[in-house]
Amino acid sequence: MRILLVGAGGVGDAIAKIAARRNFYELIVVSDYDPARAERTVAWVAARHGDEVASRFAAASIDASDAASVEAVAREHGATHVMNAVEPKFVQTIFAGALAAGADYLDMAMSLSEPDPEMPYEKTGLKLGDEQFDAAEDWEAAGRLALVGMGVEPGLSDVFARYAADHLFSEIDELGTRDGANLVVRDDDGNEIFAPSFSIWTTIEECLNPPVIWEKDRGWYTTPPFSEPEVFDFPDGIGPVECVNVEHEEVLLMPRWVDAKRVTFKYGLGNEFIGILKTLHQLHLDEVKPIRVRSAAGPVEVAPRDVVAAALPDPATLGPRMTGKTCAGLWVTGTGKDGSPREVYLYHVSDNEWTMAEYEAQCVVWQTALNPVIALELLATGVWQGAGVRGPESFDAAPFLELMAKAESDGGYGQAWGLEDRLA
Amino acid sequence: MRILLVGAGGVGDAIAKIAARRNFYELIVVSDYDPARAERTVAWVAARHGDEVASRFAAASIDASDAASVEAVAREHGATHVMNAVEPKFVQTIFAGALAAGADYLDMAMSLSEPDPEMPYEKTGLKLGDEQFDAAEDWEAAGRLALVGMGVEPGLSDVFARYAADHLFSEIDELGTRDGANLVVRDDDGNEIFAPSFSIWTTIEECLNPPVIWEKDRGWYTTPPFSEPEVFDFPDGIGPVECVNVEHEEVLLMPRWVDAKRVTFKYGLGNEFIGILKTLHQLHLDEVKPIRVRSAAGPVEVAPRDVVAAALPDPATLGPRMTGKTCAGLWVTGTGKDGSPREVYLYHVSDNEWTMAEYEAQCVVWQTALNPVIALELLATGVWQGAGVRGPESFDAAPFLELMAKAESDGGYGQAWGLEDRLA
Repeated sequence: MRILLVGAGGVGDAIAKIAARRNFYELIVVSDYDPARAERTVAWVAARHGDEVASRFAAASIDASDAASVEAVAREHGATHVMNAVEPKFVQTIFAGALAAGADYLDMAMSLSEPDPEMPYEKTGLKLGDEQFDAAEDWEAAGRLALVGMGVEPGLSDVFARYAADHLFSEIDELGTRDGANLVVRDDDGNEIFAPSFSIWTTIEECLNPPVIWEKDRGWYTTPPFSEPEVFDFPDGIGPVECVNVEHEEVLLMPRWVDAKRVTFKYGLGNEFIGILKTLHQLHLDEVKPIRVRSAAGPVEVAPRDVVAAALPDPATLGPRMTGKTCAGLWVTGTGKDGSPREVYLYHVSDNEWTMAEYEAQCVVWQTALNPVIALELLATGVWQGAGVRGPESFDAAPFLELMAKAESDGGYGQAWGLEDRLA
Repeated sequence: MRILLVGAGGVGDAIAKIAARRNFYELIVVSDYDPARAERTVAWVAARHGDEVASRFAAASIDASDAASVEAVAREHGATHVMNAVEPKFVQTIFAGALAAGADYLDMAMSLSEPDPEMPYEKTGLKLGDEQFDAAEDWEAAGRLALVGMGVEPGLSDVFARYAADHLFSEIDELGTRDGANLVVRDDDGNEIFAPSFSIWTTIEECLNPPVIWEKDRGWYTTPPFSEPEVFDFPDGIGPVECVNVEHEEVLLMPRWVDAKRVTFKYGLGNEFIGILKTLHQLHLDEVKPIRVRSAAGPVEVAPRDVVAAALPDPATLGPRMTGKTCAGLWVTGTGKDGSPREVYLYHVSDNEWTMAEYEAQCVVWQTALNPVIALELLATGVWQGAGVRGPESFDAAPFLELMAKAESDGGYGQAWGLEDRLA
């Protein structure tokens, strides 16, 4: 397996760091629009793991917005797999570049949605991933695999869905991804500051788009942003967090392969963050269409959302100033294998102190990065195989969760996941 | 009098429109960085008032950030007065350009402040107008007048202060400028939208800088933003509005010429706007220092605050979609001329429907523009005269308020102002 990793931002960097402890691949080419970022990641691997491990890494320059650039870099390095680790706005060009290069493809977020122009908060328009699924036949015909949505959420949450269907439930009422954290970022004086632990660009996209819900007898439909607030109790000391509906890939992926009556995604944003997102929207600062702004060099065209992202600290740099844990998981209700009602929460918790000490990566990006590395290993070893455009829940979940939980000394990733039975 | 008007934005445009009904000047050169804006203003005057009036107007291009450009345009047109109608960040260059051109100068906002680096919310640093008052000797030596802070607030509020001291009070406890409105802006579907009726750039500057307060036995000092909230009851149907301390020129001007124990400025921002300003600050979007942002044309450097301003509707364009009134005034407490306690609110209300119908200008910018035109007329007729750097309260208030209130048919501006005695 020769992997072209596109993007050496927070998640891309953590993918390289996690993969550096594994042996399932021949080469990882870390590429970025800014070659210095890619080189920094490779230098970290060399410093931490020595020259032998680093000899399986290379740095390259790439333009993720240009399919031809992706194809060229993939071909140049003989990439068998293209791992997309940049923002979802580049999904389509990387996806096309990988296919053109004859490589398999993985991402952690799917092609973007567009709201219905008439009834955005009732009907779906172009859905998340639609543009990728529209190309499914091309991938099948080429015998190549596009494994889409293979981060933590989507990704691990989808693996949990398949696991619940195969091993825990005879009938599923709801597959509800629930994400929450108790992370706090402090400035040099120890004061709490506002600094999102994940790309604000993506967070705005997710949170201000109309949330999508799937119901078996209704199909996909949308609601206004921040709908159906609920307080969800997260495990491992995180506790109750206010969650709201958010547009997310799981709702588009799970119903394609797992039988359930309802599929939802709720994000534990908390009240402060919800207020901030509403204000950004009110002030049109969430817009991605460039506007004309004066500058010392004359008028320039910038997207307000890019300015919001640039004004905040880079999430990848927050690790040292952050404390707390983040939890990704799937809440499942329905009928257990024994025919009685069942309610479980399947989850994985990532503790920032641990990820910083072990990987110098903050916990949210590290947790996102962990899962595609496990998936790549399952593909490299042939445990997972297939062609076409597929979600994580289309593969057997058991070997994934086994490899994830097994101790590192035993060849696994040493990452325990939890199962909480909620009907006592 | 030959006036160089610098800036054809909302307030500059309204100054030209108000002046077009008067005869005290020989020429008004409307200038702007964007000459099309200046030409649009002159074209409006021609269309509304005919060629004879328009023959006393000219349009020109100017770079307000460059004192040499201001001087050159002023000299070219033989300007006797330079009227600054752009954002306060250009005060220093226009102020210097006017003096270099041998012209008198007026503005509606003073040179910017800089917080104390150590104790920003307790001590003043560089104060509003300090850079202008530092040049007072140069203006006196040249025999030229710089009339600073001559809009509505500062401006009319300062005129009220002088009037209160001369005609209403024997001793003043507090001169408290209080500004409030009940303006609502709607979109094409009739829904209320967030759209500040005054430059967001200036509003951020005013509201997020440490508010300054003056006390006779303490001098100038500062507090944290949004301090001392109070609900002030505004006249003419506006009613109660939550007001907070805001950094404003009156507090720097009034104590120099009017005897009082305390001078404050409170702005009726309302809770929603306060929340928005706090969020902008939290996200560093109030910053004026350029940051590096990606764009289709490669990385660019823009100031986040300029982006916030560019993303919002231009306040000058809001008139047709706005309803309501804005009130500017001065609340004065102390001892009346008869020796008994007195509390008055001196005010002027501007109704958007009226200003739109009469001037095609929204009420907040129109109200700001009215006062420098009256001041220019008093200077043109010699009723006000002087040299040096001076505030409105250094001149006799009575002729100003008289000219303002007198009917248009009688040679006045037909703008009634109110006096409310608040101790029944």
